[in-house]
Amino acid sequence: MERKAAEIVRAVEQGAGTLHRAIPGPMGAYAGLLKEVTKDGALSGRVKELMAIAISIVEGCEGCIAYHTREAIKKGATREEFAETISVAIEMRGGPATVYGGGALALYDDLT
Amino acid sequence: MERKAAEIVRAVEQGAGTLHRAIPGPMGAYAGLLKEVTKDGALSGRVKELMAIAISIVEGCEGCIAYHTREAIKKGATREEFAETISVAIEMRGGPATVYGGGALALYDDLT
Amino acid sequence: MERKAAEIVRAVEQGAGTLHRAIPGPMGAYAGLLKEVTKDGALSGRVKELMAIAISIVEGCEGCIAYHTREAIKKGATREEFAETISVAIEMRGGPATVYGGGALALYDDLT
Amino acid sequence: MERKAAEIVRAVEQGAGTLHRAIPGPMGAYAGLLKEVTKDGALSGRVKELMAIAISIVEGCEGCIAYHTREAIKKGATREEFAETISVAIEMRGGPATVYGGGALALYDDLT
Amino acid sequence: MERKAAEIVRAVEQGAGTLHRAIPGPMGAYAGLLKEVTKDGALSGRVKELMAIAISIVEGCEGCIAYHTREAIKKGATREEFAETISVAIEMRGGPATVYGGGALALYDDLT
Amino acid sequence: MERKAAEIVRAVEQGAGTLHRAIPGPMGAYAGLLKEVTKDGALSGRVKELMAIAISIVEGCEGCIAYHTREAIKKGATREEFAETISVAIEMRGGPATVYGGGALALYDDLT
Repeated sequence: MERKAAEIVRAVEQGAGTLHRAIPGPMGAYAGLLKEVTKDGALSGRVKELMAIAISIVEGCEGCIAYHTREAIKKGATREEFAETISVAIEMRGGPATVYGGGALALYDDLT
Repeated sequence: MERKAAEIVRAVEQGAGTLHRAIPGPMGAYAGLLKEVTKDGALSGRVKELMAIAISIVEGCEGCIAYHTREAIKKGATREEFAETISVAIEMRGGPATVYGGGALALYDDLT
Repeated sequence: MERKAAEIVRAVEQGAGTLHRAIPGPMGAYAGLLKEVTKDGALSGRVKELMAIAISIVEGCEGCIAYHTREAIKKGATREEFAETISVAIEMRGGPATVYGGGALALYDDLT
Repeated sequence: MERKAAEIVRAVEQGAGTLHRAIPGPMGAYAGLLKEVTKDGALSGRVKELMAIAISIVEGCEGCIAYHTREAIKKGATREEFAETISVAIEMRGGPATVYGGGALALYDDLT
Repeated sequence: MERKAAEIVRAVEQGAGTLHRAIPGPMGAYAGLLKEVTKDGALSGRVKELMAIAISIVEGCEGCIAYHTREAIKKGATREEFAETISVAIEMRGGPATVYGGGALALYDDLT
Repeated sequence: MERKAAEIVRAVEQGAGTLHRAIPGPMGAYAGLLKEVTKDGALSGRVKELMAIAISIVEGCEGCIAYHTREAIKKGATREEFAETISVAIEMRGGPATVYGGGALALYDDLT
């Protein structure tokens, strides 16, 4: 990961902003989905953000990792929880998850 | 999902058994990885099994869903936690996660 | 594809129904997204359903293929358009798209 | 997306050129496939290029997005059609498609 | 894997036949690509079929696994080579590759 | 691929080092798996590294490509073998594999 975490998150948010202006209907519905999914419920919002990070590592999406890492930190996720989340991705995805997971931990450290 | 959940899990375990006999070195290491990842730590084993289910839905792997669903139930995951886990997969994967997620909830109900 | 197309679609809709009852917030938002995306706009709903089929083939999701095939047929997609949609998936995904694409065309023929 | 769109397309074409020299048989056949798929037929070449972009977003392949975006522009795809294509990818892929889709729209704007 | 291997291969070939009739241009080019790739060269056709199986396991495509397994057997791949091929997929894909890999070995045993 | 190959490999190894310190149990088991899989057996370590490269191209993981390319070169893989490995990925993944495959060949040339 060559770019600073904050810069990646800014690019993601800028891209989302452009999409909202271009396709307000679909993006409004998507934003509603994101909000519903990440609020506290039977599982805490913190745990659900960590799940989103595990999936982002599996999908190899750097922008997703950076965005959800910032959200997980906001909701109080510790470095130990973050690292164990990466371990689940490694069990479920193998080698590529060690590559994206290593980058994810660097983003976590960069943002805290 | 046409097959009963227990039958799918049995096929997964049978396949894993055959692999253990054919490639004992790699499968032994993989089994060690699985054990390390799913034990209680900063995150509970229950939460990590739910993460594995979210990833399995994203990967569209029915056998993985069935296996980790059984493990999550053993570790006390409630139906509400299970359903919210599916919601994270839907946010991160869209339409296909509603298809595999619907199947996953049927497997949960079948196993409890 | 061993199951009849109509049976696959029914299983998808049944699974979605169960999810709606379990996680009404996220599924309501997802349903809104689906509706926004597939309505007529700069691109016709028919073309957008065909795009969804191309993606479903790439993702290897049989339930998605069956559901969007039924929708595309409702919106008037011809067999020629359907087959050319599969060809794009083959160019972008290679061998697996010939397998899922062959199954998709069988579903189309089964539903018409 | 840090690099300019034209630079990404140039890198893709340079890589393809090197592959053509190294494995002329397979690459010649692939080039034939690409040509067959993207020509006008029951669906216009323009629509098929847009389908290829939807798939490229789902696959998270920046080089593919840039290449097919240039081709879609050559064939007259409007910004509205391009944005609705992204919306289909979001419905079928969720969060990662908002990230890659935002980048895709920036590439479109950069190339027009 | 509930179906017999030979039955899966037959369904794949039947699907490909239907596609050839519907989109002869793209399928002809794809068939040429397949032929170019799997012939003996710097790597033997046998090793390249095994590579295709490793990829099929990673992609979770049962029809692809069955088809390339039959081809690899025709070209003399031993059970030991086949099993080690699965081990590479496990290293590169984790848990899902143990599920699809177990099914692949059952297909190999069924076809020999 | 903008970065030099050696720099990418260094980033991968640095990330893996950080992960080893954070989650020594899972990473130790993963390292054992990697070692078991890539040693000489019924298939040579060289061929298994090439298989890992084919999978890395299919998964679109640049760090994986760079790491396994260095390993394959260490074990004596020729440029012809490397290029034919890419051709299998193209047959099994289509367009995206031409993009990542072109980048992979550039990495090979950069490292030799």
